Amino acid sequence: MKQLEHVKEWGGWLSRYQHASRTCHCDMTFSIYLPPQAATAAVPAVYWLSGLTCTDDNMRTKAGAQRYAAELGLALIIPDTSPRGDAVPDAVERYDLGQGAGFYVNATQAPWSEHYQMYDYITQELPALIEAECPVIAGLRSITGHSMGGHGALMCALKNPGMYRSVSAFAPICHPTLCGWGQGCFSAYLGDEQAAWQSYDATALVQAGAEPLPILIDQGTDDEFLAEQLYPQDFAQACQTRGVPLQLRMQEGYDHSYHFISSFMGEHLAFHREYLSR
Amino acid sequence: MKQLEHVKEWGGWLSRYQHASRTCHCDMTFSIYLPPQAATAAVPAVYWLSGLTCTDDNMRTKAGAQRYAAELGLALIIPDTSPRGDAVPDAVERYDLGQGAGFYVNATQAPWSEHYQMYDYITQELPALIEAECPVIAGLRSITGHSMGGHGALMCALKNPGMYRSVSAFAPICHPTLCGWGQGCFSAYLGDEQAAWQSYDATALVQAGAEPLPILIDQGTDDEFLAEQLYPQDFAQACQTRGVPLQLRMQEGYDHSYHFISSFMGEHLAFHREYLSR
Repeated sequence: MKQLEHVKEWGGWLSRYQHASRTCHCDMTFSIYLPPQAATAAVPAVYWLSGLTCTDDNMRTKAGAQRYAAELGLALIIPDTSPRGDAVPDAVERYDLGQGAGFYVNATQAPWSEHYQMYDYITQELPALIEAECPVIAGLRSITGHSMGGHGALMCALKNPGMYRSVSAFAPICHPTLCGWGQGCFSAYLGDEQAAWQSYDATALVQAGAEPLPILIDQGTDDEFLAEQLYPQDFAQACQTRGVPLQLRMQEGYDHSYHFISSFMGEHLAFHREYLSR
Repeated sequence: MKQLEHVKEWGGWLSRYQHASRTCHCDMTFSIYLPPQAATAAVPAVYWLSGLTCTDDNMRTKAGAQRYAAELGLALIIPDTSPRGDAVPDAVERYDLGQGAGFYVNATQAPWSEHYQMYDYITQELPALIEAECPVIAGLRSITGHSMGGHGALMCALKNPGMYRSVSAFAPICHPTLCGWGQGCFSAYLGDEQAAWQSYDATALVQAGAEPLPILIDQGTDDEFLAEQLYPQDFAQACQTRGVPLQLRMQEGYDHSYHFISSFMGEHLAFHREYLSR
Protein backbone atom coordinates (compact mmCIF):
# COMPACT_ATOMS: atom_id res chain seq x y z
CA MET A 1 0.00 0.00 0.00
CA LYS A 2 1.41 3.36 -1.05
CA GLN A 3 0.27 6.32 1.05
CA LEU A 4 -0.80 9.26 -1.10
CA GLU A 5 -2.17 11.54 1.61
CA HIS A 6 -2.31 11.67 5.40
CA VAL A 7 -4.28 14.47 7.06
CA LYS A 8 -5.28 15.01 10.66
CA GLU A 9 -9.01 15.48 11.22
CA TRP A 10 -11.06 15.36 14.39
CA GLY A 11 -8.08 14.04 16.30
CA GLY A 12 -7.78 11.03 13.98
CA TRP A 13 -6.17 10.55 10.59
CA LEU A 14 -7.64 10.55 7.12
CA SER A 15 -5.37 8.74 4.67
CA ARG A 16 -5.47 7.85 1.01
CA TYR A 17 -3.72 4.75 -0.30
CA GLN A 18 -3.03 3.19 -3.66
CA HIS A 19 -2.40 -0.51 -4.10
CA ALA A 20 -2.03 -3.01 -6.96
CA SER A 21 -5.32 -4.92 -7.03
CA ARG A 22 -5.10 -8.58 -8.03
CA THR A 23 -8.89 -8.58 -8.42
CA CYS A 24 -9.26 -5.54 -10.68
CA HIS A 25 -5.84 -5.89 -12.35
CA CYS A 26 -4.99 -2.23 -11.92
CA ASP A 27 -3.96 0.22 -9.22
CA MET A 28 -6.89 0.98 -6.93
CA THR A 29 -7.22 3.99 -4.64
CA PHE A 30 -9.12 4.17 -1.37
CA SER A 31 -9.36 6.45 1.65
CA ILE A 32 -9.53 5.37 5.25
CA TYR A 33 -10.36 7.45 8.31
CA LEU A 34 -9.01 6.11 11.58
CA PRO A 35 -10.58 7.75 14.63
CA PRO A 36 -8.48 8.76 17.66
CA GLN A 37 -9.45 5.50 19.40
CA ALA A 38 -7.54 3.51 16.75
CA ALA A 39 -4.25 4.84 18.10
CA THR A 40 -4.54 2.48 21.05
CA ALA A 41 -6.85 -0.36 19.95
CA ALA A 42 -8.41 -1.78 16.80
CA VAL A 43 -11.87 -0.43 15.96
CA PRO A 44 -14.90 -1.63 13.94
CA ALA A 45 -15.18 -0.46 10.33
CA VAL A 46 -17.97 1.06 8.27
CA TYR A 47 -17.56 0.76 4.51
CA TRP A 48 -18.89 3.55 2.28
CA LEU A 49 -19.77 2.97 -1.38
CA SER A 50 -20.16 6.13 -3.47
CA GLY A 51 -22.47 6.87 -6.37
CA LEU A 52 -22.08 7.36 -10.14
CA THR A 53 -19.23 9.70 -11.19
CA CYS A 54 -17.73 9.73 -7.67
CA THR A 55 -14.34 8.70 -6.34
CA ASP A 56 -13.37 8.37 -2.70
CA ASP A 57 -13.16 12.16 -2.60
CA ASN A 58 -16.86 13.00 -2.21
CA MET A 59 -17.34 11.10 1.01
CA ARG A 60 -14.10 12.26 2.60
CA THR A 61 -14.68 15.96 1.87
CA LYS A 62 -18.46 16.53 1.73
CA ALA A 63 -20.32 14.09 3.98
CA GLY A 64 -19.18 15.33 7.39
CA ALA A 65 -18.76 11.70 8.50
CA GLN A 66 -15.38 11.98 10.20
CA ARG A 67 -16.84 13.90 13.10
CA TYR A 68 -19.19 11.07 13.98
CA ALA A 69 -16.60 8.39 13.30
CA ALA A 70 -14.31 10.14 15.81
CA GLU A 71 -17.09 10.36 18.38
CA LEU A 72 -18.21 6.75 17.91
CA GLY A 73 -14.79 5.14 17.46
CA LEU A 74 -15.43 3.83 13.95
CA ALA A 75 -13.05 3.48 11.01
CA LEU A 76 -14.42 4.63 7.66
CA ILE A 77 -13.31 2.69 4.57
CA ILE A 78 -13.97 4.58 1.34
CA PRO A 79 -13.17 2.74 -1.91
CA ASP A 80 -13.33 4.08 -5.45
CA THR A 81 -16.41 3.40 -7.61
CA SER A 82 -14.62 1.47 -10.37
CA PRO A 83 -11.24 0.38 -11.66
CA ARG A 84 -9.25 3.28 -13.14
CA GLY A 85 -6.45 4.02 -15.56
CA ASP A 86 -5.59 4.34 -19.21
CA ALA A 87 -5.55 0.56 -19.63
CA VAL A 88 -9.06 0.19 -18.14
CA PRO A 89 -12.00 0.26 -20.60
CA ASP A 90 -14.27 3.27 -20.32
CA ALA A 91 -17.30 4.83 -21.98
CA VAL A 92 -15.94 8.36 -22.08
CA GLU A 93 -19.12 9.88 -23.49
CA ARG A 94 -21.20 8.44 -20.64
CA TYR A 95 -21.22 9.29 -16.93
CA ASP A 96 -23.22 6.18 -16.10
CA LEU A 97 -21.04 3.42 -17.55
CA GLY A 98 -17.38 2.51 -17.28
CA GLN A 99 -14.95 4.39 -15.03
CA GLY A 100 -16.84 5.92 -12.10
CA ALA A 101 -19.77 3.54 -12.67
CA GLY A 102 -18.65 0.04 -11.69
CA PHE A 103 -21.99 -0.72 -9.96
CA TYR A 104 -20.15 -3.08 -7.58
CA VAL A 105 -20.68 -6.19 -9.74
CA ASN A 106 -18.25 -8.69 -11.29
CA ALA A 107 -18.44 -8.07 -15.04
CA THR A 108 -18.61 -11.17 -17.25
CA GLN A 109 -18.63 -9.44 -20.64
CA ALA A 110 -15.84 -8.04 -22.81
CA PRO A 111 -14.29 -5.51 -22.65
CA TRP A 112 -15.29 -5.00 -19.01
CA SER A 113 -14.60 -8.36 -17.42
CA GLU A 114 -10.83 -8.06 -17.07
CA HIS A 115 -10.93 -5.09 -14.68
CA TYR A 116 -14.53 -4.52 -13.55
CA GLN A 117 -14.56 -7.02 -10.66
CA MET A 118 -15.81 -4.57 -8.06
CA TYR A 119 -17.99 -7.07 -6.17
CA ASP A 120 -15.02 -9.27 -5.32
CA TYR A 121 -12.89 -6.22 -4.66
CA ILE A 122 -15.35 -4.71 -2.16
CA THR A 123 -16.36 -7.91 -0.38
CA GLN A 124 -13.05 -9.82 -0.47
CA GLU A 125 -9.82 -8.14 -1.49
CA LEU A 126 -10.25 -4.75 0.18
CA PRO A 127 -11.44 -6.01 3.61
CA ALA A 128 -8.64 -8.61 3.65
CA LEU A 129 -6.06 -5.94 2.84
CA ILE A 130 -7.38 -3.47 5.40
CA GLU A 131 -7.79 -6.02 8.16
CA ALA A 132 -4.20 -7.14 7.59
CA GLU A 133 -2.66 -3.65 7.40
CA CYS A 134 -4.80 -1.31 9.55
CA PRO A 135 -6.00 -1.20 13.17
CA VAL A 136 -9.53 -2.42 12.45
CA ILE A 137 -11.14 -5.48 14.02
CA ALA A 138 -11.25 -8.35 11.51
CA GLY A 139 -14.79 -9.27 10.55
CA LEU A 140 -16.50 -6.47 12.47
CA ARG A 141 -17.99 -4.46 9.61
CA SER A 142 -21.06 -2.58 8.49
CA ILE A 143 -21.68 -1.04 5.10
CA THR A 144 -23.47 2.01 3.72
CA GLY A 145 -23.48 4.14 0.59
CA HIS A 146 -25.22 6.57 -1.72
CA SER A 147 -27.29 6.01 -4.86
CA MET A 148 -25.40 3.39 -6.94
CA GLY A 149 -23.33 2.81 -3.80
CA GLY A 150 -26.43 2.63 -1.62
CA HIS A 151 -27.55 -0.24 -3.79
CA GLY A 152 -24.05 -1.71 -3.67
CA ALA A 153 -24.22 -1.69 0.12
CA LEU A 154 -27.64 -3.37 0.22
CA MET A 155 -26.61 -5.93 -2.38
CA CYS A 156 -23.26 -6.82 -0.78
CA ALA A 157 -24.91 -7.23 2.61
CA LEU A 158 -27.87 -9.29 1.35
CA LYS A 159 -25.62 -11.64 -0.66
CA ASN A 160 -23.26 -12.31 2.25
CA PRO A 161 -25.02 -13.27 5.48
CA GLY A 162 -22.79 -12.57 8.46
CA MET A 163 -20.30 -10.46 6.55
CA TYR A 164 -21.82 -7.15 7.73
CA ARG A 165 -23.59 -6.48 11.03
CA SER A 166 -25.90 -3.85 9.52
CA VAL A 167 -26.48 -1.98 6.28
CA SER A 168 -27.80 1.46 5.45
CA ALA A 169 -28.23 3.56 2.34
CA PHE A 170 -28.89 7.12 1.21
CA ALA A 171 -31.19 7.34 -1.83
CA PRO A 172 -30.21 3.90 -3.12
CA ILE A 173 -31.04 2.58 -6.60
CA CYS A 174 -33.28 -0.07 -5.09
CA HIS A 175 -34.33 -2.07 -8.12
CA PRO A 176 -31.59 -1.72 -10.76
CA THR A 177 -32.95 -4.38 -13.11
CA LEU A 178 -35.97 -2.11 -13.70
CA CYS A 179 -34.37 1.37 -14.04
CA GLY A 180 -32.26 2.97 -16.73
CA TRP A 181 -29.06 3.33 -14.72
CA GLY A 182 -29.13 -0.32 -13.66
CA GLN A 183 -30.15 -1.69 -17.03
CA GLY A 184 -27.41 0.29 -18.78
CA CYS A 185 -24.68 -1.10 -16.52
CA PHE A 186 -26.05 -4.62 -16.11
CA SER A 187 -26.49 -5.15 -19.85
CA ALA A 188 -22.94 -3.98 -20.52
CA TYR A 189 -21.22 -5.76 -17.63
CA LEU A 190 -23.39 -8.91 -17.36
CA GLY A 191 -24.83 -9.39 -20.86
CA ASP A 192 -28.32 -10.76 -21.44
CA GLU A 193 -28.33 -13.42 -18.77
CA GLN A 194 -31.25 -12.45 -16.50
CA ALA A 195 -30.19 -14.75 -13.68
CA ALA A 196 -26.97 -12.77 -13.33
CA TRP A 197 -28.95 -9.52 -13.22
CA GLN A 198 -31.22 -10.85 -10.49
CA SER A 199 -28.27 -12.03 -8.40
CA TYR A 200 -27.04 -8.43 -8.12
CA ASP A 201 -30.41 -6.72 -7.57
CA ALA A 202 -31.23 -5.87 -3.95
CA THR A 203 -34.99 -6.07 -4.42
CA ALA A 204 -34.70 -9.41 -6.23
CA LEU A 205 -32.40 -10.72 -3.50
CA VAL A 206 -35.00 -9.95 -0.82
CA GLN A 207 -37.74 -11.46 -2.98
CA ALA A 208 -35.60 -14.59 -3.31
CA GLY A 209 -35.34 -14.95 0.46
CA ALA A 210 -32.09 -13.28 1.48
CA GLU A 211 -31.32 -13.55 5.19
CA PRO A 212 -32.48 -10.41 7.06
CA LEU A 213 -30.12 -7.97 8.77
CA PRO A 214 -30.73 -4.48 10.22
CA ILE A 215 -31.46 -2.10 7.32
CA LEU A 216 -31.87 1.69 7.40
CA ILE A 217 -32.67 3.73 4.28
CA ASP A 218 -33.10 7.51 4.03
CA GLN A 219 -34.72 8.89 0.90
CA GLY A 220 -35.42 12.57 0.16
CA THR A 221 -38.88 13.35 -1.18
CA ASP A 222 -37.48 16.04 -3.52
CA ASP A 223 -34.79 13.79 -4.97
CA GLU A 224 -34.68 14.51 -8.70
CA PHE A 225 -34.00 10.82 -9.44
CA LEU A 226 -36.63 9.33 -7.15
CA ALA A 227 -39.38 8.62 -9.67
CA GLU A 228 -37.24 7.38 -12.56
CA GLN A 229 -34.32 5.54 -11.01
CA LEU A 230 -34.63 4.67 -7.33
CA TYR A 231 -37.86 2.68 -6.65
CA PRO A 232 -37.64 2.44 -2.84
CA GLN A 233 -41.27 1.30 -2.82
CA ASP A 234 -40.27 -1.91 -4.62
CA PHE A 235 -37.64 -2.70 -2.03
CA ALA A 236 -40.02 -1.85 0.83
CA GLN A 237 -42.71 -4.08 -0.68
CA ALA A 238 -40.28 -6.98 -1.03
CA CYS A 239 -39.13 -6.53 2.59
CA GLN A 240 -42.73 -6.44 3.81
CA THR A 241 -43.65 -9.59 1.86
CA ARG A 242 -40.62 -11.46 3.17
CA GLY A 243 -40.82 -10.13 6.74
CA VAL A 244 -37.48 -8.34 6.50
CA PRO A 245 -37.33 -5.47 9.03
CA LEU A 246 -36.62 -2.26 7.14
CA GLN A 247 -36.53 1.32 8.38
CA LEU A 248 -37.31 3.37 5.27
CA ARG A 249 -37.51 7.07 6.13
CA MET A 250 -38.89 9.47 3.54
CA GLN A 251 -37.19 12.79 4.36
CA GLU A 252 -39.40 15.72 3.39
CA GLY A 253 -37.83 18.26 1.04
CA TYR A 254 -34.38 16.69 0.70
CA ASP A 255 -32.69 16.06 -2.66
CA HIS A 256 -30.01 13.64 -3.96
CA SER A 257 -26.95 15.68 -2.92
CA TYR A 258 -24.33 15.45 -0.21
CA HIS A 259 -26.25 18.20 1.60
CA PHE A 260 -28.92 15.53 2.16
CA ILE A 261 -26.31 12.92 3.08
CA SER A 262 -24.54 15.16 5.60
CA SER A 263 -27.86 15.94 7.31
CA PHE A 264 -28.40 12.28 8.25
CA MET A 265 -24.87 10.84 8.31
CA GLY A 266 -24.68 11.02 12.09
CA GLU A 267 -27.85 8.95 12.47
CA HIS A 268 -26.56 6.32 10.06
CA LEU A 269 -23.23 5.93 11.82
CA ALA A 270 -24.99 5.77 15.20
CA PHE A 271 -27.28 3.07 13.75
CA HIS A 272 -24.27 1.00 12.69
CA ARG A 273 -22.45 1.58 15.98
CA GLU A 274 -25.28 -0.18 17.79
CA TYR A 275 -24.59 -3.41 15.93
CA LEU A 276 -20.80 -3.17 15.86
CA SER A 277 -19.99 -4.62 19.25
CA ARG A 278 -17.73 -7.62 19.37
CA MET B 1 -31.23 38.77 -6.24
CA LYS B 2 -31.50 35.80 -8.57
CA GLN B 3 -31.66 32.40 -6.87
CA LEU B 4 -29.29 29.89 -8.48
CA GLU B 5 -29.70 27.02 -6.04
CA HIS B 6 -31.86 26.09 -3.05
CA VAL B 7 -31.11 22.88 -1.16
CA LYS B 8 -32.47 21.56 2.12
CA GLU B 9 -29.80 20.73 4.70
CA TRP B 10 -30.09 20.05 8.41
CA GLY B 11 -33.70 21.17 8.35
CA GLY B 12 -32.77 24.60 7.00
CA TRP B 13 -32.02 25.87 3.51
CA LEU B 14 -28.76 26.47 1.71
CA SER B 15 -29.22 28.90 -1.16
CA ARG B 16 -26.98 30.51 -3.73
CA TYR B 17 -27.77 33.93 -5.18
CA GLN B 18 -26.39 36.18 -7.87
CA HIS B 19 -26.89 39.95 -7.84
CA ALA B 20 -25.63 42.98 -9.74
CA SER B 21 -23.11 44.62 -7.42
CA ARG B 22 -22.91 48.41 -7.58
CA THR B 23 -19.68 48.23 -5.57
CA CYS B 24 -17.80 45.71 -7.71
CA HIS B 25 -19.52 46.61 -10.99
CA CYS B 26 -20.22 43.02 -11.93
CA ASP B 27 -22.51 40.16 -10.98
CA MET B 28 -21.51 38.75 -7.60
CA THR B 29 -22.43 35.32 -6.24
CA PHE B 30 -22.89 34.34 -2.61
CA SER B 31 -24.37 31.49 -0.61
CA ILE B 32 -26.49 31.78 2.50
CA TYR B 33 -27.53 29.07 4.92
CA LEU B 34 -30.68 29.81 6.89
CA PRO B 35 -31.18 27.48 9.86
CA PRO B 36 -34.60 26.00 10.72
CA GLN B 37 -35.11 28.77 13.31
CA ALA B 38 -35.16 31.38 10.53
CA ALA B 39 -38.49 30.02 9.30
CA THR B 40 -40.20 31.72 12.23
CA ALA B 41 -37.90 34.56 13.35
CA ALA B 42 -34.87 36.48 12.16
CA VAL B 43 -31.52 35.10 13.33
CA PRO B 44 -27.99 36.46 13.86
CA ALA B 45 -25.50 36.04 11.02
CA VAL B 46 -21.93 34.78 10.81
CA TYR B 47 -19.99 35.87 7.72
CA TRP B 48 -17.40 33.50 6.25
CA LEU B 49 -14.52 34.76 4.08
CA SER B 50 -12.73 32.07 2.07
CA GLY B 51 -9.09 31.79 1.07
CA LEU B 52 -7.09 32.10 -2.15
CA THR B 53 -8.54 30.23 -5.17
CA CYS B 54 -11.85 29.59 -3.38
CA THR B 55 -15.41 30.55 -4.21
CA ASP B 56 -18.42 30.21 -1.92
CA ASP B 57 -18.37 26.50 -2.74
CA ASN B 58 -15.62 25.35 -0.37
CA MET B 59 -17.33 26.50 2.79
CA ARG B 60 -20.78 25.26 1.81
CA THR B 61 -19.61 21.77 0.85
CA LYS B 62 -16.49 20.99 2.91
CA ALA B 63 -16.55 22.78 6.27
CA GLY B 64 -19.44 20.97 7.95
CA ALA B 65 -20.69 24.30 9.29
CA GLN B 66 -24.38 23.91 8.49
CA ARG B 67 -24.85 21.33 11.21
CA TYR B 68 -23.72 23.76 13.89
CA ALA B 69 -25.55 26.70 12.36
CA ALA B 70 -28.75 24.64 12.53
CA GLU B 71 -28.11 23.69 16.15
CA LEU B 72 -27.17 27.23 17.21
CA GLY B 73 -29.72 29.15 15.12
CA LEU B 74 -27.19 31.09 13.08
CA ALA B 75 -27.32 32.20 9.46
CA LEU B 76 -24.12 31.68 7.46
CA ILE B 77 -23.26 34.26 4.81
CA ILE B 78 -20.65 33.03 2.33
CA PRO B 79 -19.45 35.56 -0.29
CA ASP B 80 -17.08 34.95 -3.17
CA THR B 81 -13.38 35.85 -2.84
CA SER B 82 -13.25 38.42 -5.65
CA PRO B 83 -15.24 39.98 -8.46
CA ARG B 84 -15.71 37.59 -11.40
CA GLY B 85 -16.41 37.57 -15.10
CA ASP B 86 -14.86 38.06 -18.51
CA ALA B 87 -14.90 41.84 -18.08
CA VAL B 88 -13.04 41.65 -14.75
CA PRO B 89 -9.22 41.89 -14.86
CA ASP B 90 -7.38 38.73 -13.89
CA ALA B 91 -3.86 37.33 -13.65
CA VAL B 92 -4.64 34.01 -15.27
CA GLU B 93 -1.17 32.57 -14.75
CA ARG B 94 -1.33 33.23 -10.99
CA TYR B 95 -3.51 31.65 -8.30
CA ASP B 96 -2.63 34.38 -5.81
CA LEU B 97 -3.68 37.53 -7.69
CA GLY B 98 -6.82 38.60 -9.51
CA GLN B 99 -9.96 36.50 -9.63
CA GLY B 100 -10.14 34.27 -6.55
CA ALA B 101 -7.64 36.50 -4.73
CA GLY B 102 -9.36 39.80 -3.93
CA PHE B 103 -7.81 39.97 -0.43
CA TYR B 104 -10.88 41.89 0.78
CA VAL B 105 -9.35 45.33 0.05
CA ASN B 106 -10.51 48.27 -2.08
CA ALA B 107 -8.05 48.42 -4.97
CA THR B 108 -6.80 51.88 -5.94
CA GLN B 109 -4.60 50.88 -8.89
CA ALA B 110 -5.41 50.17 -12.54
CA PRO B 111 -6.55 47.78 -13.88
CA TRP B 112 -7.93 46.45 -10.56
CA SER B 113 -9.67 49.47 -9.08
CA GLU B 114 -12.86 49.37 -11.15
CA HIS B 115 -14.02 45.96 -9.86
CA TYR B 116 -11.82 44.93 -6.93
CA GLN B 117 -13.73 46.77 -4.18
CA MET B 118 -14.13 43.76 -1.93
CA TYR B 119 -13.73 45.66 1.36
CA ASP B 120 -16.75 47.85 0.66
CA TYR B 121 -18.63 44.87 -0.75
CA ILE B 122 -18.09 42.72 2.36
CA THR B 123 -18.58 45.42 4.99
CA GLN B 124 -21.29 47.53 3.32
CA GLU B 125 -23.12 46.32 0.22
CA LEU B 126 -23.55 42.64 1.09
CA PRO B 127 -24.78 43.08 4.69
CA ALA B 128 -27.20 45.80 3.56
CA LEU B 129 -28.56 43.54 0.83
CA ILE B 130 -28.91 40.53 3.10
CA GLU B 131 -30.43 42.42 5.99
CA ALA B 132 -33.02 43.88 3.61
CA GLU B 133 -33.87 40.62 1.83
CA CYS B 134 -33.32 37.75 4.29
CA PRO B 135 -34.55 36.83 7.81
CA VAL B 136 -31.39 37.92 9.62
CA ILE B 137 -31.28 40.46 12.44
CA ALA B 138 -29.89 43.77 11.16
CA GLY B 139 -26.55 44.62 12.74
CA LEU B 140 -26.16 41.37 14.69
CA ARG B 141 -23.11 39.88 12.98
CA SER B 142 -19.87 38.07 13.59
CA ILE B 143 -17.22 37.21 11.05
CA THR B 144 -14.74 34.39 10.43
CA GLY B 145 -12.69 32.95 7.61
CA HIS B 146 -9.73 30.93 6.39
CA SER B 147 -6.22 31.99 5.35
CA MET B 148 -6.65 35.10 3.13
CA GLY B 149 -10.24 35.15 4.42
CA GLY B 150 -9.12 34.67 8.01
CA HIS B 151 -7.11 37.83 7.59
CA GLY B 152 -10.07 39.48 5.87
CA ALA B 153 -12.23 38.69 8.88
CA LEU B 154 -9.70 40.07 11.38
CA MET B 155 -9.11 43.17 9.28
CA CYS B 156 -12.80 43.95 8.65
CA ALA B 157 -13.57 43.54 12.35
CA LEU B 158 -10.62 45.61 13.59
CA LYS B 159 -11.34 48.45 11.16
CA ASN B 160 -15.03 48.69 12.10
CA PRO B 161 -15.64 48.86 15.85
CA GLY B 162 -19.18 47.71 16.66
CA MET B 163 -19.85 46.20 13.24
CA TYR B 164 -19.12 42.64 14.41
CA ARG B 165 -19.67 41.17 17.87
CA SER B 166 -16.75 38.76 17.57
CA VAL B 167 -14.18 37.56 15.05
CA SER B 168 -12.40 34.27 14.50
CA ALA B 169 -10.03 32.83 11.95
CA PHE B 170 -8.57 29.54 10.76
CA ALA B 171 -4.90 29.78 9.78
CA PRO B 172 -5.12 33.48 8.88
CA ILE B 173 -2.46 35.41 6.97
CA CYS B 174 -1.78 37.53 10.03
CA HIS B 175 0.76 40.02 8.74
CA PRO B 176 0.21 40.41 4.99
CA THR B 177 2.52 43.40 4.54
CA LEU B 178 5.44 41.09 5.45
CA CYS B 179 4.61 37.89 3.52
CA GLY B 180 4.68 36.99 -0.16
CA TRP B 181 0.96 36.48 -0.62
CA GLY B 182 0.11 39.80 0.98
CA GLN B 183 2.87 41.78 -0.72
CA GLY B 184 1.90 40.39 -4.12
CA CYS B 185 -1.72 41.47 -3.76
CA PHE B 186 -1.14 44.74 -1.89
CA SER B 187 1.45 46.00 -4.40
CA ALA B 188 -0.89 45.23 -7.30
CA TYR B 189 -4.12 46.49 -5.74
CA LEU B 190 -2.77 49.36 -3.58
CA GLY B 191 0.45 50.45 -5.30
CA ASP B 192 3.46 51.67 -3.36
CA GLU B 193 1.62 53.71 -0.74
CA GLN B 194 2.67 52.10 2.56
CA ALA B 195 -0.06 53.85 4.55
CA ALA B 196 -2.67 52.06 2.47
CA TRP B 197 -0.94 48.74 3.07
CA GLN B 198 -0.90 49.31 6.83
CA SER B 199 -4.57 50.24 6.89
CA TYR B 200 -5.46 46.76 5.62
CA ASP B 201 -3.01 44.74 7.74
CA ALA B 202 -4.50 43.11 10.85
CA THR B 203 -1.25 43.13 12.80
CA ALA B 204 -0.61 46.77 11.92
CA LEU B 205 -4.19 47.67 12.90
CA VAL B 206 -3.68 46.20 16.37
CA GLN B 207 -0.30 47.92 16.68
CA ALA B 208 -2.03 51.19 15.77
CA GLY B 209 -4.53 50.79 18.59
CA ALA B 210 -7.62 49.19 17.07
CA GLU B 211 -10.50 48.74 19.50
CA PRO B 212 -10.51 45.21 21.00
CA LEU B 213 -13.23 42.63 20.41
CA PRO B 214 -13.38 38.90 21.18
CA ILE B 215 -10.86 37.12 18.89
CA LEU B 216 -10.33 33.37 18.43
CA ILE B 217 -7.67 31.96 16.09
CA ASP B 218 -6.91 28.29 15.39
CA GLN B 219 -3.63 27.46 13.67
CA GLY B 220 -2.38 23.97 12.78
CA THR B 221 1.23 23.24 13.69
CA ASP B 222 1.74 21.18 10.49
CA ASP B 223 0.32 23.87 8.21
CA GLU B 224 2.56 23.93 5.13
CA PHE B 225 2.20 27.74 4.90
CA LEU B 226 2.78 28.55 8.56
CA ALA B 227 6.45 29.55 8.43
CA GLU B 228 6.42 31.50 5.15
CA GLN B 229 3.02 33.19 4.95
CA LEU B 230 0.97 33.26 8.15
CA TYR B 231 2.99 34.85 11.04
CA PRO B 232 0.48 34.33 13.89
CA GLN B 233 3.28 35.16 16.34
CA ASP B 234 3.36 38.74 15.00
CA PHE B 235 -0.37 39.17 15.57
CA ALA B 236 -0.15 37.60 19.03
CA GLN B 237 2.75 39.88 19.95
CA ALA B 238 0.82 42.96 18.81
CA CYS B 239 -2.23 41.86 20.82
CA GLN B 240 -0.12 41.28 23.90
CA THR B 241 1.57 44.67 23.60
CA ARG B 242 -1.76 46.44 23.14
CA GLY B 243 -3.67 44.40 25.74
CA VAL B 244 -6.05 42.96 23.18
CA PRO B 245 -7.49 39.66 24.46
CA LEU B 246 -6.69 36.95 21.91
CA GLN B 247 -7.26 33.21 22.08
CA LEU B 248 -4.61 31.79 19.74
CA ARG B 249 -4.72 27.98 19.78
CA MET B 250 -1.88 26.07 18.12
CA GLN B 251 -3.49 22.79 17.05
CA GLU B 252 -0.96 19.96 17.04
CA GLY B 253 -0.59 18.07 13.77
CA TYR B 254 -3.24 19.92 11.73
CA ASP B 255 -2.58 21.33 8.26
CA HIS B 256 -4.10 24.15 6.14
CA SER B 257 -7.00 22.16 4.66
CA TYR B 258 -10.74 22.03 5.20
CA HIS B 259 -10.13 18.83 7.20
CA PHE B 260 -8.54 21.14 9.78
CA ILE B 261 -11.35 23.67 9.45
CA SER B 262 -14.12 21.10 9.85
CA SER B 263 -12.46 19.76 13.01
CA PHE B 264 -12.87 23.10 14.82
CA MET B 265 -15.79 24.74 13.03
CA GLY B 266 -18.23 23.80 15.78
CA GLU B 267 -16.10 25.53 18.41
CA HIS B 268 -15.83 28.68 16.31
CA LEU B 269 -19.57 28.93 15.74
CA ALA B 270 -20.23 28.28 19.43
CA PHE B 271 -17.72 31.05 20.25
CA HIS B 272 -19.61 33.49 18.03
CA ARG B 273 -23.00 32.37 19.35
CA GLU B 274 -21.98 33.53 22.81
CA TYR B 275 -21.63 37.11 21.62
CA LEU B 276 -24.57 37.15 19.23
CA SER B 277 -27.35 37.90 21.66
CA ARG B 278 -29.41 40.96 21.04
